[in-house]
Amino acid sequence: MTTRIFPTAQDAENAFYEALERCDLEAMMAVWAEDEDIICVHPGGPRLSGQDQVRESWAQIFSGGPGARVAIAQQVAISAMMIAVHSVHENFTVPGESQPRAPILATNVYLRTAAGWRMIVHHASPAPAQAQAAARESGPKILH
Amino acid sequence: MTTRIFPTAQDAENAFYEALERCDLEAMMAVWAEDEDIICVHPGGPRLSGQDQVRESWAQIFSGGPGARVAIAQQVAISAMMIAVHSVHENFTVPGESQPRAPILATNVYLRTAAGWRMIVHHASPAPAQAQAAARESGPKILH
Repeated sequence: MTTRIFPTAQDAENAFYEALERCDLEAMMAVWAEDEDIICVHPGGPRLSGQDQVRESWAQIFSGGPGARVAIAQQVAISAMMIAVHSVHENFTVPGESQPRAPILATNVYLRTAAGWRMIVHHASPAPAQAQAAARESGPKILH
Repeated sequence: MTTRIFPTAQDAENAFYEALERCDLEAMMAVWAEDEDIICVHPGGPRLSGQDQVRESWAQIFSGGPGARVAIAQQVAISAMMIAVHSVHENFTVPGESQPRAPILATNVYLRTAAGWRMIVHHASPAPAQAQAAARESGPKILH
């Protein structure tokens, strides 16, 4: 297991999406807290909890290898001493697809642990197709 | 605006689901933090933020009046000094429907404010139909 230290929740979030793009399972799991109560919901999927279920799900997702790019937009961040909550739109681009995909809405929760900031919850679900247009009309709401 | 004080995040969660069952808009909005960065995602819906969008969405949902019952199951709670995160399955029962509906997965985030614990994030999305069976097989995981 990589023992990378993330000094901020944003560092952990950046590492999460880098690992997701690279399909790097060890880098992905290094972002998560070493805790049995971690929660992961992939779009349309069941709730997964604990290291084993979460690792297995990412291994399956990554088995096809990298290719997709993900751009994070419209982040809203709520921070406290020990926990940070980020709400983001994930915009995936897949080579060979002419149309951008509908965004994915994600709620990411990070905990400040003895080993730096780590992810404890990732809840992702598909946004309706029109959400992207509506969001653009309302202007940027990026706190970072 | 009701100025009800919730001494714990669980009290706020109980009030949230009571208001949802009763279709009581004022009771619902009394659960939310008076903050512009509140986030609400209804199942299959876009991300809503701020008091106005969140209130309007509940007003629409409640316009049909009460009837559905919701049972909360498999809560996983992660708590810190100022923030609590609850992951739950919402099992809705609608009178006249013979089959129970597929569960909704919700991530609820509560903030400890000067006026007690309030909701700041509600992210709900449909679980796949088989999640209910799989969850039952794995036994209860209720921390409260």
